[in-house]
Amino acid sequence: MKVKNILLFLLTAAGAPLSSGFGQGADGPADLVDRADSSAALVDSPADLADPLIDTRSPRWDYLKSATLPFGMVALSPDTKHGNLWKAGYRYDDPYILNFSHVHNMQTAGIPVMPVTGPCRGNEGIEANKSRFSHEKEVVKPGYHKLFLEDDQITAELTATCRVGMHRYTFPATGQAHLLFDLGAALGPTEMSYAYARQTGKNEIEGYVVNAPTYRRPKPYVIHFVARFSKPFDAFFGWKNGVFAEPEAGIISGEGSGVYVTYKNLKEDEQILLKVAISYVSPGNARLNLETELPHWNFEQVVAEARKAWNDYLGRIRVEGGTKQQQIKFYTDLMHTAGKRISSDVDGSYADYTGPFPVIRGVPADSSGKPVRPFMEGDGLWGTHWNLNILWSLVYPEYGNWMAETFLDYYRNAGTMARCSWGGNYSYVMVGDHITPLLAALVSTGRNSFDPELAWSAARKNAFPGGIRDRAGYESGPNPSGGGIDWYIDLGYVPMEIAERGKGLHRGGAGMTLEYAYQDWCLAGMGRIIGKETDVALLMKRSENWRNLFDPETGWMRPRDLSGEWTEPFSPVFDKQHPTPDGFIEGNAAIYTFYVPQDMEGLIGASGGKKAFADKLNASFLKAQPYNFFSPDGNHRTGWVNYKNQPSCAMAHLFSYAGEPWKTQYWVREVKERAFGGTDPYSGYNGDEDQGQMGALGVLMAMGIFDIHGCVGEKPALEITSPLFDRTVITFPSVEDPSHMNTFEINVKRKNRDDIYIQKATLNGQRWDRFQFPVSQFFKGGKLEIELGKTPNYKWGIP
Amino acid sequence: MKVKNILLFLLTAAGAPLSSGFGQGADGPADLVDRADSSAALVDSPADLADPLIDTRSPRWDYLKSATLPFGMVALSPDTKHGNLWKAGYRYDDPYILNFSHVHNMQTAGIPVMPVTGPCRGNEGIEANKSRFSHEKEVVKPGYHKLFLEDDQITAELTATCRVGMHRYTFPATGQAHLLFDLGAALGPTEMSYAYARQTGKNEIEGYVVNAPTYRRPKPYVIHFVARFSKPFDAFFGWKNGVFAEPEAGIISGEGSGVYVTYKNLKEDEQILLKVAISYVSPGNARLNLETELPHWNFEQVVAEARKAWNDYLGRIRVEGGTKQQQIKFYTDLMHTAGKRISSDVDGSYADYTGPFPVIRGVPADSSGKPVRPFMEGDGLWGTHWNLNILWSLVYPEYGNWMAETFLDYYRNAGTMARCSWGGNYSYVMVGDHITPLLAALVSTGRNSFDPELAWSAARKNAFPGGIRDRAGYESGPNPSGGGIDWYIDLGYVPMEIAERGKGLHRGGAGMTLEYAYQDWCLAGMGRIIGKETDVALLMKRSENWRNLFDPETGWMRPRDLSGEWTEPFSPVFDKQHPTPDGFIEGNAAIYTFYVPQDMEGLIGASGGKKAFADKLNASFLKAQPYNFFSPDGNHRTGWVNYKNQPSCAMAHLFSYAGEPWKTQYWVREVKERAFGGTDPYSGYNGDEDQGQMGALGVLMAMGIFDIHGCVGEKPALEITSPLFDRTVITFPSVEDPSHMNTFEINVKRKNRDDIYIQKATLNGQRWDRFQFPVSQFFKGGKLEIELGKTPNYKWGIP
Repeated sequence: MKVKNILLFLLTAAGAPLSSGFGQGADGPADLVDRADSSAALVDSPADLADPLIDTRSPRWDYLKSATLPFGMVALSPDTKHGNLWKAGYRYDDPYILNFSHVHNMQTAGIPVMPVTGPCRGNEGIEANKSRFSHEKEVVKPGYHKLFLEDDQITAELTATCRVGMHRYTFPATGQAHLLFDLGAALGPTEMSYAYARQTGKNEIEGYVVNAPTYRRPKPYVIHFVARFSKPFDAFFGWKNGVFAEPEAGIISGEGSGVYVTYKNLKEDEQILLKVAISYVSPGNARLNLETELPHWNFEQVVAEARKAWNDYLGRIRVEGGTKQQQIKFYTDLMHTAGKRISSDVDGSYADYTGPFPVIRGVPADSSGKPVRPFMEGDGLWGTHWNLNILWSLVYPEYGNWMAETFLDYYRNAGTMARCSWGGNYSYVMVGDHITPLLAALVSTGRNSFDPELAWSAARKNAFPGGIRDRAGYESGPNPSGGGIDWYIDLGYVPMEIAERGKGLHRGGAGMTLEYAYQDWCLAGMGRIIGKETDVALLMKRSENWRNLFDPETGWMRPRDLSGEWTEPFSPVFDKQHPTPDGFIEGNAAIYTFYVPQDMEGLIGASGGKKAFADKLNASFLKAQPYNFFSPDGNHRTGWVNYKNQPSCAMAHLFSYAGEPWKTQYWVREVKERAFGGTDPYSGYNGDEDQGQMGALGVLMAMGIFDIHGCVGEKPALEITSPLFDRTVITFPSVEDPSHMNTFEINVKRKNRDDIYIQKATLNGQRWDRFQFPVSQFFKGGKLEIELGKTPNYKWGIP
Repeated sequence: MKVKNILLFLLTAAGAPLSSGFGQGADGPADLVDRADSSAALVDSPADLADPLIDTRSPRWDYLKSATLPFGMVALSPDTKHGNLWKAGYRYDDPYILNFSHVHNMQTAGIPVMPVTGPCRGNEGIEANKSRFSHEKEVVKPGYHKLFLEDDQITAELTATCRVGMHRYTFPATGQAHLLFDLGAALGPTEMSYAYARQTGKNEIEGYVVNAPTYRRPKPYVIHFVARFSKPFDAFFGWKNGVFAEPEAGIISGEGSGVYVTYKNLKEDEQILLKVAISYVSPGNARLNLETELPHWNFEQVVAEARKAWNDYLGRIRVEGGTKQQQIKFYTDLMHTAGKRISSDVDGSYADYTGPFPVIRGVPADSSGKPVRPFMEGDGLWGTHWNLNILWSLVYPEYGNWMAETFLDYYRNAGTMARCSWGGNYSYVMVGDHITPLLAALVSTGRNSFDPELAWSAARKNAFPGGIRDRAGYESGPNPSGGGIDWYIDLGYVPMEIAERGKGLHRGGAGMTLEYAYQDWCLAGMGRIIGKETDVALLMKRSENWRNLFDPETGWMRPRDLSGEWTEPFSPVFDKQHPTPDGFIEGNAAIYTFYVPQDMEGLIGASGGKKAFADKLNASFLKAQPYNFFSPDGNHRTGWVNYKNQPSCAMAHLFSYAGEPWKTQYWVREVKERAFGGTDPYSGYNGDEDQGQMGALGVLMAMGIFDIHGCVGEKPALEITSPLFDRTVITFPSVEDPSHMNTFEINVKRKNRDDIYIQKATLNGQRWDRFQFPVSQFFKGGKLEIELGKTPNYKWGIP
């Protein structure tokens, strides 16, 4: 089998521009084997393919998915680095395990556990209790993590339910072993300003930590926990500020404090199991979560159930064909799309931090009292119209609605939709109003389970002064002005002077203008569906504001100042000799010039017609190709195309609109493989997967469907690109009856692996020559069959 | 009937020292009628006798009991004055009703409602919307309040369940009527730092207020509410800082904000009903409280159930005989003993503010999930060993245990028992450790439903440095030293220099010493019962520390300084000519000299024997008699006896221990009638009932039983004094099986009303000559029969 695979790989790799562009780890011998073709059957257990270790060299704090479920509240995993949101958490090349902690969200962290043997040194801090480990003895799968702590000779295994982390520690024979809870330690992006723990039973402790405020989360945040041990411990003790402290009335509390439990005289291979449930509401709810989700001590059962949960999630899309590595990457991508996190308890309670005090609220419940959906926590949705929104609308509508309802909860609770839900509160991450495109997508596709009238009110508010577009990125506090919506309305664009107004980050007037115009169009689309014609006309007019920044002389989007003048000097990409003023958001004119999904016809016209437009775009891709479609130097202002950040993410798909769908077929595949093809710890997402966004983009590119409009509009349609796999079977809840599942299948015929150009297609047996097909056809279910060839069919797909 | 009663009154009043000493209102014509003898039967419906208006001229904020249940979380009543804890709330002589508000606790307040007609002026504040009212159209009973708002011609009626206030407003015909919720207004003792309200239905709003910190409650406190209206309102609107403001997304929030609902075109006599549920936990729990306790709109039913709840509470003690006024005062006293307040929700949740953030916790539940008891809120227990502790131990053990468990909750949650539970947090009101005498009483009487080992740990902690006796009154924050427990242990007393150490109030070293010594003895008593002999010996030794302050030269307790010197100048009461330094707590040497309940024999010995002791005490009473046993000038340092404050409250009972029980019989009755006999709005408690304490003292004096030891000790005994009523039937939960009720009856035979001296007594038919009888006899049930005569029987009761 091994020999055969190697041979297959060699055959495959021979002719391949597609096999280049992988990260450095792709050349190892293990890779040689795996890169071979997969077996000719639909993937049976996708959870076994998804690889949490991909691109873990330098990830975000919240990146690793090991002992966690899809959207799991608990994300239990080993940490090797603290101190930041970026380049923290589990980093593949770090030599030491510092602890196993339960909360890995963008701006929150908590409840670290570390098993040690010998005299307790918990008081000396996390660094003093770290242990070496090696990847040889490590197993990492969605829902399971196992490794060997060499210094203490302890095998650590982790798994989880949604809200409970489960640990199994296998000890050497030892006179004393301790499980340390360093509750005062700084973890990932946050310090702990206060900790509290008390013994609540012979085998239980409970407590909470207060996450100190961060720049991005201006309020403290409380995480409650209940930890239950499989065996009564022999002692419960603690420390404060580095000094051991005896619990008073069983309690240790205050800044810089930690606790530990001690077991004496453990036998060789004796196992201690630990369950840690969390809640953002109360210790009682942490206990409720524990007792509801994990009443037993069967570790293997939890692992199996976690695997099943991941298989259920990933199995909505089953693929056949492609290389093993492509399958691995596909399911790893898909795994990351489940990266937002539930933050409500089993009873639907959640903590609302929008006011001066946390307020415990509850999501709606059904007639039996069961919450109908959770409240969510996660990074902002800036850019998700080109990835998650599409995937949620098509395949995972319940999770898209979870997000939508969470933002509507912010509207219901505090009067304005957030850009993001961190620590139960607004964070204003990035700019504009990212939520309206999601609401509009779900309404446009008939997927919304929320009240569209409420969504309209909430989204409309955000389109005018008094809403979220008053604010720049991270502009919190009263009297915001860094969003420039007033200027946008008055002038038809946000001028360069926005950089000097308000507070916060990301104040690029031209970028804001282009995003606002798309968001206006999304709102208009939603409004049209639910009969808000007056507003629709106004918003459609506003959606043309991109024209105010299109400089006909240079042919690029160009920032303007308050007086209407174009900024000088100007270059579509940052030019060191003539440094152009910034005016965009993690992008530049070269990229944002193509940010007009709502009016491709207008943009193409302004650009001199289809040919000129496609040539200009093609030139950009050619210039970006050597850098795998990232910026040459990591600076987001220097790339002609930059798939590291969201503004680029539709660019490869635009050729189809300019009459050259074969170029979309080519560049989408190039981007997919060069930018996102890596499957080792050093590549895959260029270091920032962006909490499901790059994963979702990869999934869409692999399936060969996309929509530059983000599935918004009266009759949304999907763009067809060249599928990666021979067969892709997509199972999704029916629009009419979400409890019933429909199936849409995408089949490919090709002679060679490198055949990427669409020759012809049929939709449910009927010839299909357009590059788009209606989302409604997708929802009906059926088959899209595509024949791929080595060279373009210049006639297919031309509208 | 009226004529007959007047005649009876005249006959009764003729010979009576007992009929003097009433407040000024006692002379009105209504009083003439009521002062007549009551009918010769046990009181049938005591709730109809209790009069919430007694002594309402200038009460505390939390005093009035109208639309509230015993220990009710909601205390809904009209407010006529805000701005303070004292002399606020409902004041009898104030001409205006400002609002009806739901929370009347010592340091918290919230959710004011005011019905008005005509153009809305809610934005102008509470004063602008007040209305005149008169007592003629007012009805006030436990559980019900009715009055007529003259300015707006609205009849307002209020009633309540435990956690829900119910309003019934009968309007005149009007084009517009509004129900104002001035959520930003300062109420009683607290300002509101933030308010939030949103419309949650066509006839519902929810929200919360944040009570700003006060000196006595150093943290803010949140009160959630849900208000539901019997009829959908026509509009929901609000204001902020005096200016009308349109709700955004149905929400009004921020400092200084309020909301109102509007009804248009109400017909003559149209009624709008309103239910307001509160919770200190969450809006969801407020709604749960509402839907659990009050799912219907039957106002009369709620009034009837409230009356029943009060009858159930008050009916544990049924009396016969005495005057109608005495019965009224008795049940008013008893009503006030239900003055602490439940602060947990129907599901047992409560808010713990001991840490940096409020933490939602829950009381234990039974197997069906029902909370076994509530978490309580209330003033501190300073002095309750001479009133509530006795009543709780004998008759109402469940409520005593509620209090005890609440303080143990503080120990469990935060490591130290509080002195008081205000706003879910420590307040350190008054000095010492008042809780240990309560725990010891419940353990001593076998009444404790709590774990005595836990109680021991908690109480023992408070007896040493690191516990509550580190702190002076209101001394919050870290590193407390104003309690002087270290000096107390080192020196055997707390020296005068304590006034210069630490922070807070009430730093009187001699007073602290005497209280600490009694508390040590209580702790020893509890320790002896549960086998903590080593500590018992130490504590019993410490309980003799009163001797260190007894100055044999003057014969009075006298403050000492660090060097051991007596303070100069000295006078048992404050002397303007030679101002003595203070060294006591709301008392003086004249009073605190008698504060040695744990060692009457020692004190009497030190005082020169029984005769000398009794004469000295009698001299004090004679000096205090002209002032009705209060201080002559309201200063607590000037009275020889001062039943306004707790340190005096056992004084009249001490004669029995000096061999002169007839003097106890005389002075107890004198105090009962002169200090506490008033039944009009201007008398009854000298302006401060002290949240059940003076009521309980009055009840005990009226029943003719007391225990200067506060029911603490190995074999606690009750002191017999002269009962007020012909018959007193006390029904109480059995010690062995609290679900079963026992009865103890106290019957009196006398020829004349003025016969107050015990001639002889029988206990269950057996002659009983001692002035004490065991609490265990009381618990067994039975009858104490007492014959009273005009002159003392100098032989009865001598031990």
